[in-house]
Amino acid sequence: MTIKEVVKSDKTLEKFNKEKLCKSLIKAGVARKDAQVICKDIIKHLPERTDTQTIHKTVHKFLCKNNLVCAVKYSLKKAIMDLGPEGRVFEKYTARILNEYGYITKVNQIMKGKCVDHEIDILAIKDGVHYIIENKYHNQRGIKSDVKVVMYLYARLLDIEEKRRENKDMAQHIAWLITNTKFTYNTILFARCRNIKLTGWKYPKKESLEKLIEEKSLYPITALPSINNTTKNLLFQNNIILIKDLTSATENDLMRIGIFRKNATKILNEAQEFLKITNKY
Amino acid sequence: MTIKEVVKSDKTLEKFNKEKLCKSLIKAGVARKDAQVICKDIIKHLPERTDTQTIHKTVHKFLCKNNLVCAVKYSLKKAIMDLGPEGRVFEKYTARILNEYGYITKVNQIMKGKCVDHEIDILAIKDGVHYIIENKYHNQRGIKSDVKVVMYLYARLLDIEEKRRENKDMAQHIAWLITNTKFTYNTILFARCRNIKLTGWKYPKKESLEKLIEEKSLYPITALPSINNTTKNLLFQNNIILIKDLTSATENDLMRIGIFRKNATKILNEAQEFLKITNKY
Repeated sequence: MTIKEVVKSDKTLEKFNKEKLCKSLIKAGVARKDAQVICKDIIKHLPERTDTQTIHKTVHKFLCKNNLVCAVKYSLKKAIMDLGPEGRVFEKYTARILNEYGYITKVNQIMKGKCVDHEIDILAIKDGVHYIIENKYHNQRGIKSDVKVVMYLYARLLDIEEKRRENKDMAQHIAWLITNTKFTYNTILFARCRNIKLTGWKYPKKESLEKLIEEKSLYPITALPSINNTTKNLLFQNNIILIKDLTSATENDLMRIGIFRKNATKILNEAQEFLKITNKY
Repeated sequence: MTIKEVVKSDKTLEKFNKEKLCKSLIKAGVARKDAQVICKDIIKHLPERTDTQTIHKTVHKFLCKNNLVCAVKYSLKKAIMDLGPEGRVFEKYTARILNEYGYITKVNQIMKGKCVDHEIDILAIKDGVHYIIENKYHNQRGIKSDVKVVMYLYARLLDIEEKRRENKDMAQHIAWLITNTKFTYNTILFARCRNIKLTGWKYPKKESLEKLIEEKSLYPITALPSINNTTKNLLFQNNIILIKDLTSATENDLMRIGIFRKNATKILNEAQEFLKITNKY
């Protein structure tokens, strides 16, 4: 019995593609010569019909045995889902990523428009340009950011721009949608046509969300294997969101915010090991 | 023990207002002289803290004993909720209401915009004006139509207008949001400012959704006490949406679409009685 069909996260069926799986291993850092062998081994462990998440987990298990960097990198999508259930932490995480790329950020700003006041998730400023950012967070796989989101964002930009012109404010404003999911085709078309910046999963190719994270090793703490729900919430409450943030923390710091010594040791060790290998602190 | 507090459908608490309750009886058709007596009687039957839906049900019971017209009119909000769970039937219902007011309607139209194609819930035409209608249906109480909806509707209108100008089409286009819920304050502000037409629950005062329905007695079949889930779905599948639509149906017609004779008789009797008294067919 070999795997034949895959149920994708949007519930559609797809023929299983062996090449795609083997290539994903090479992309994750497996040497080309080993990839075919590991790939065959993984396929042996999959049932005739399975879903993308199960494939993902199985690959993860095979690849990341005793390899922390692999584990963290491979679980990024899930780690971001784990920032939820609501979008508040994703908002903070996004602001932190932008900071690392040189943007000054303010979260939850009110900006006056011609018709109404607008609640802006993040206002980011860089090189004199003001970015009006809408943050769309989904805690489920298989959801795509709908064209309606960029449409209301465009209406918001126009409303704010009209007010600014009244006030003779000449700063350049650009609307920007940042999400942890993919975009529909119409979202991309509309955004291109109206000059709205998009950042999401695998889009745009060279500056997608995961590229921005990988480039500067801005992984969230939820990617560490030893983080559980309790420790996650305690760390978030204390504004520790990136694995990087843990470099300046001591065991005592973590115990002071309510984490048991045993967990604190584990978390700090993992963080240090990860950052040492990725060489990014 | 007398009622003191009311939990509203948006889960907020409100001090119980006796005057408001008594006035609602007069509005529902109770003679001014009887209203005070019935009002006191109802209050006696309510616990110290209750919710709007329980008050609604209790009033309904007291008012509508053996009075079909009262029962149908009083349950309009619930009857519209019962068109759900999805918005498809509400869309058809809205189109029917518009037809009765002289609009020509087309549902689910695709219209070209400058950037993308737009799916229009209803395109309505009257006196040369084209109305681009977005239908927003909620099957839960206490939800208000958010400003983001009128904002994306405005962006859609602009996109369609730019394309039309390219094509030298000079027809006037107006965006129109029709919903079964109330609007937030910002939605109303934005719509006024951008010339978007709004129709919802209790808004605008003289042409709100319930006024449009009452004016021409366009009650949905779900307002009839004898309609259950099965008969409702059978009737909808056969495009019988208004109580009015039942005037041209016979018992045999209803039996042919799968309704038992006993139910068919009851439904047709209720419909006939209601329409005879309201004198609107």
